[in-house]
Amino acid sequence: MDDQRVISKLNNLGNKILEDIRLGEGPRIRMPQRGIGNIIFNERENILELGEKTSTRSFLNVAHSRKFMQTILIASKCKEFVSRGKTASIRELYYQLKHTIPGTKENTFEDQSESDPLIVDLETALGVLREELHLKADDKGTLIGKITIEDSGDFIDCSKLGRSGLSIPSIVEHYKFHDVQAEYVLVIETGAMFDRLVEEKYHIKNNCIMVATKGQAARGCRRLVHRLHHELKLPVIMFTDGDPWGYYIYSVMKAGSMALAHESKRLGTPGMKLVGMTMTDIDTYGLEKVTEKLKDVDKRRINELLQYPWFQKKEWKKELNLMIKKGVRIEQQALASKSLEFVAEEYLPEKISKGIMLP
Amino acid sequence: MDDQRVISKLNNLGNKILEDIRLGEGPRIRMPQRGIGNIIFNERENILELGEKTSTRSFLNVAHSRKFMQTILIASKCKEFVSRGKTASIRELYYQLKHTIPGTKENTFEDQSESDPLIVDLETALGVLREELHLKADDKGTLIGKITIEDSGDFIDCSKLGRSGLSIPSIVEHYKFHDVQAEYVLVIETGAMFDRLVEEKYHIKNNCIMVATKGQAARGCRRLVHRLHHELKLPVIMFTDGDPWGYYIYSVMKAGSMALAHESKRLGTPGMKLVGMTMTDIDTYGLEKVTEKLKDVDKRRINELLQYPWFQKKEWKKELNLMIKKGVRIEQQALASKSLEFVAEEYLPEKISKGIMLP
Repeated sequence: MDDQRVISKLNNLGNKILEDIRLGEGPRIRMPQRGIGNIIFNERENILELGEKTSTRSFLNVAHSRKFMQTILIASKCKEFVSRGKTASIRELYYQLKHTIPGTKENTFEDQSESDPLIVDLETALGVLREELHLKADDKGTLIGKITIEDSGDFIDCSKLGRSGLSIPSIVEHYKFHDVQAEYVLVIETGAMFDRLVEEKYHIKNNCIMVATKGQAARGCRRLVHRLHHELKLPVIMFTDGDPWGYYIYSVMKAGSMALAHESKRLGTPGMKLVGMTMTDIDTYGLEKVTEKLKDVDKRRINELLQYPWFQKKEWKKELNLMIKKGVRIEQQALASKSLEFVAEEYLPEKISKGIMLP
Repeated sequence: MDDQRVISKLNNLGNKILEDIRLGEGPRIRMPQRGIGNIIFNERENILELGEKTSTRSFLNVAHSRKFMQTILIASKCKEFVSRGKTASIRELYYQLKHTIPGTKENTFEDQSESDPLIVDLETALGVLREELHLKADDKGTLIGKITIEDSGDFIDCSKLGRSGLSIPSIVEHYKFHDVQAEYVLVIETGAMFDRLVEEKYHIKNNCIMVATKGQAARGCRRLVHRLHHELKLPVIMFTDGDPWGYYIYSVMKAGSMALAHESKRLGTPGMKLVGMTMTDIDTYGLEKVTEKLKDVDKRRINELLQYPWFQKKEWKKELNLMIKKGVRIEQQALASKSLEFVAEEYLPEKISKGIMLP
């Protein structure tokens, strides 16, 4: 969505409130409900999304009026950011808006915990991402491989970044893609495994783009993978640890999260698949010796995953139940027990070429 | 240190043990003690280092023999890594070495917590960094600015990386520096402030290299800043939050840490200075409204810093005592309360040009 459309959405919000006032009505903002009762797993599209239920914030409702005022302040400041071509972190937004209301002892905001949820409200009310409102989250993640990214006038050949790679920023809306020679995107959970594959020149030999999420993926990383998949039609394959935490990171990349269900369509990549680590790998590759016993916290998490609608596919139920039965987890780096090169020269090429992946 | 010298140090260790055996003596390894009693703050060089006390690990001492065996296994595997031009994460090292000793039920290692401290032992015994043994830690941090880095045959112009920047890897020993136009290095604690300064083109307008540590700096990031300072003679200025946590991140970058005192000389940058945030800034720039009250945990941490020999300079004692007196902390991003551009257009240029910095 371009800046002009975002500004026009913000203007509409303001005009609607002015109209309420002109009509002598209490100003109101309507937005989708974000509670668990309105979060739906769309099985056809493989994505978490918000349902039809809405709620209304009214200026003249005493319980709402402070939040109403704060929401409008945020909308107004975002309009300024977008108009001026500036971006700000959600913390900077808070600091920019925090002040004492003249003639009172009332502060607009006492704490960032007041402004953060209202940003989400504004995103859902307007149907825009916070990045489109020019608000930044923390950034994390690295990219390397056969693609040239145009960023603010610079053309970055991501296959010519040595072993270092490109630091993925929090906002990637401005990225333009050129000279895409890669055939797929490999998303890797741990920085250490990304380093291993870079050292083995996996991205060169296998003609792909590699992205390290370094744990739970940051929004910029999710959005970038989404764009690579949807705009360039590149298949996306993820490679995580074989434990409930790795699988959940995968599911958020793929289908979105409950907390941010309104954003799954812009951040999620429902078409992606998981190459490993799986419980089946343990037998296939003889890795019993390098598994680790499940802790209670792991077991609880597996049982939670088994409840989620998006883990109801038979392949996933089989893997998760096998994990409980074996009582072990396995890390990506455990493949080093075979040899350092094993993951790059045998494990990944074999599984990917044969399509041995989880949905 | 080049690979050949590291291999020769590893060979010497092995030959010494062979000699012990030939002489009919129990094989021993001597290494500096790393306990608090042997950690010294070198005031002249402004750096934490290990003293002269050593300890000995003997194969024939039952309490030592398992560790002795493990140390030798690690040394031998590192020699293999270096000889083959491979690097490995400390987790991969563990997985590569974990096996059952033939004819017994004894595993070489049960857990990575057994191998990690022995890596440090080997570093201190040989006087080499783990990166020189081709072992990787986690990577974190981003660099942007007027320098070209040669990495594995690629020449990366770090002023042409849009708003993204270079992802700093865990090992930077192989980096070669070219075409350095920057006049200094600005090291920034938070990713959000780094983003702000990138957006304001601070590095272009002020002709510097900017490095984001993103919290406590990773080893690769510390080593890179060390190299930029010592090899290129670039002044280094750090910019952290105004709280004991930010100041400690600074002190580790500058003087090293107690846990890794043996590495300060290779990772630390004793010549660096801190531009802010300081308690004095609060009065100078009228930031009272955007400070935050100290929590008990902050107060305890300040009192700990006040005990450390490397915080005994009068400027630091003044700042830390002022923090206790005011009872507040202040974040880098609080400068956004003036304007988004304030930090880049006024705060940093003014303080740096006037040299208003802490030692």
